[in-house]
Amino acid sequence: MSILIKNVLLDRSETHVYVEDNIIQEIGKKIEADCVIDGKNKAILPGMVNTHTHAAMCLFRGYADDMKLDEWLQTKIWPLELKLKPEDVYWGTKLACLEMIKTGTTCFNDMYFFMENAANAVDEMGLRAFLSYGFIDLFNEEKREKEIKKTKETIRNIENMRNDRIKPALGPHAVYTVSEEALRWIKNYADEKNLIIHFHLAETKKENEDFVKKHNKRIVKYLEEICFLDKKLIAAHCIWLTNMDINLLEKHNVKISYNPASNMKLASGVFNYQKMNKLTVSLGTDGCASNNNLDMFEEMKIGSLLQKSYFNDETIMPAKEMFNIATLNGAKALGFNAGKIEEGKLADILLMDLKKTEITPCHDLISDLVYSANGSAVDTTICNGKILMENRKVEGEEEILEKAKKVASDLISR
Amino acid sequence: MSILIKNVLLDRSETHVYVEDNIIQEIGKKIEADCVIDGKNKAILPGMVNTHTHAAMCLFRGYADDMKLDEWLQTKIWPLELKLKPEDVYWGTKLACLEMIKTGTTCFNDMYFFMENAANAVDEMGLRAFLSYGFIDLFNEEKREKEIKKTKETIRNIENMRNDRIKPALGPHAVYTVSEEALRWIKNYADEKNLIIHFHLAETKKENEDFVKKHNKRIVKYLEEICFLDKKLIAAHCIWLTNMDINLLEKHNVKISYNPASNMKLASGVFNYQKMNKLTVSLGTDGCASNNNLDMFEEMKIGSLLQKSYFNDETIMPAKEMFNIATLNGAKALGFNAGKIEEGKLADILLMDLKKTEITPCHDLISDLVYSANGSAVDTTICNGKILMENRKVEGEEEILEKAKKVASDLISR
Repeated sequence: MSILIKNVLLDRSETHVYVEDNIIQEIGKKIEADCVIDGKNKAILPGMVNTHTHAAMCLFRGYADDMKLDEWLQTKIWPLELKLKPEDVYWGTKLACLEMIKTGTTCFNDMYFFMENAANAVDEMGLRAFLSYGFIDLFNEEKREKEIKKTKETIRNIENMRNDRIKPALGPHAVYTVSEEALRWIKNYADEKNLIIHFHLAETKKENEDFVKKHNKRIVKYLEEICFLDKKLIAAHCIWLTNMDINLLEKHNVKISYNPASNMKLASGVFNYQKMNKLTVSLGTDGCASNNNLDMFEEMKIGSLLQKSYFNDETIMPAKEMFNIATLNGAKALGFNAGKIEEGKLADILLMDLKKTEITPCHDLISDLVYSANGSAVDTTICNGKILMENRKVEGEEEILEKAKKVASDLISR
Repeated sequence: MSILIKNVLLDRSETHVYVEDNIIQEIGKKIEADCVIDGKNKAILPGMVNTHTHAAMCLFRGYADDMKLDEWLQTKIWPLELKLKPEDVYWGTKLACLEMIKTGTTCFNDMYFFMENAANAVDEMGLRAFLSYGFIDLFNEEKREKEIKKTKETIRNIENMRNDRIKPALGPHAVYTVSEEALRWIKNYADEKNLIIHFHLAETKKENEDFVKKHNKRIVKYLEEICFLDKKLIAAHCIWLTNMDINLLEKHNVKISYNPASNMKLASGVFNYQKMNKLTVSLGTDGCASNNNLDMFEEMKIGSLLQKSYFNDETIMPAKEMFNIATLNGAKALGFNAGKIEEGKLADILLMDLKKTEITPCHDLISDLVYSANGSAVDTTICNGKILMENRKVEGEEEILEKAKKVASDLISR
């Protein structure tokens, strides 16, 4: 299968982009292709890479907001999660994938439960994803054995799908929910299988203070001591860190996911971007219970504005830097060859509709994309060389909306 | 002209809304009408009210970002504004109106130059607006006389249009650009003509500190002494205020416009919503040079998230409060009878498309609108009983995009 996107805006000039199989093969030549897309009045971009989310939590969107974190988790989110069934995760992930396709995300890093069902959803929807089972042993040996078994099984099942868009990953939840023994096992297993690890790090002040009080040691130092820090570790949030913590993360080339909307909505604290300039910082939306959407364009704006406001400097996190964070850095963090429109890269591609009020007059496209547009300006989404959305239409979207609505309502009343 | 919107979701149940001329006449009855809109799978809302913007600055969207405020104004924005011609403001305002219609704003409070041209644009586009000439005398008597003449002329010209959607207003820029004599004249003239005053108040730390240093007095105290504070004063930004300042604003029932995205982007500081609970707080986007869009749905999310984050409390500014701020409070502030779907109110109405991923599963519509959706979920926009957008189509939008692009490019190269 080949696609030619002709007369499309790339950076500042019009050109042609030729995709064969799942690769951007040629830029600049009009090559005959199975499918030709007219790129007139469209700009070509790499797809957004969301490096931290819990996709199926789309089902909880708007179920509970404006509550204290503890009360929110204990009285709303956890009771609902206890009732989750595999089918819920399947439809929740389908809804999330649909939302991502419609708002220009082509790859996401996901941590949740019933991940084989999530994988089936991703398989059908055509996105690229790293899927990890959320490992939580609560320092209990018996539960740990079960979680190890579940993790191995999930990885094996996902591997057996032999879908090169879908990679299994390890998903230890956080230091306050996962034992040292488990973290050590996870790191070894990830090394053995050459998989990434997806982890929550220093998200809340309480997590940080409780740990220091209990262990008389900082979280990051502890993680270094147990040999958990690694270039294949994706650490989400990373708010409550000292300079020394950051140095350790640098030393081990840990990959960082900045999650501004969730951090703001849950009043978790503010990520310090300026101190992270030697690290690969990427962007994530977190789940829809705490965001409440998966729109990476909106996340770019909120993320840049938060830095400028909190650190009192209008020049921090400029548009072009933010755009790279949301695309190229995400691909770097997760370790796949995309994030740029360049020959040889994976064909994870967006076509943006330039005939939009929010992209007019268009003095600077990247500025307009970061500060003015949102995901609704995406016209076409291509992942791994396959067209998932054209002219904002996605196959089967009506059914997904209906089914997701139904499973969410059944879940609440169950 | 009458409109029946049948089977539409209002709050939590389906009903019919009947509009005659420019008023919501009946709710609940299926009355025969000139035009019938099928409201199935749509929710009816009051239109958003944007209480602080500079509409024509849409032309500057993305022209300069990520710069220090002084450098930005002096090297980018002011030189461009010096070159502005009436036609630029006309097309800039047309573009802004188009963007507002497409993102669900039905009324805005505008301050800029060549306001007769802005008025013509608003007249044609069908929105409701309060238009003020930006009065800046720089403490110079000669300039003051010119500005007074210009202000009177603008008001007279707008009054002569006899368009009940378009009201003139007074627009003194701020205490650092407008003399005491001018502020006194403006207040008297506003009283005489029964018009609102649109003003920037305590936006930056520098404005606050410079004033106190020069006058040995706080800005709000000074404004009270010169009898400027009034219930018809719309004060934008209101960041650098003490408790005593806020008490004075309460005493005089001054109306407040919260402008979160602009305040964040320009690193101006953070509005203290919790201290403003006795005041009528409304929402504004500010101009597109500092936001960079006019989407009030996005502004609601950013505004609520900023409060939660900065004041470290996830319960501040909950969704329902924010929704009222963006609708009802805006109408209250500007003094027109709208902001709610209720019999007898002006027919400024939105129909939201409920078949959107970001409004699915829809446990709570208002939460979804504030935290998840953006203006692209607006399907139909009605202002003053007239349909301005249906099924996301606005008459003449292609021409507006082209012309706005052209005048913006001419302006830059002029």
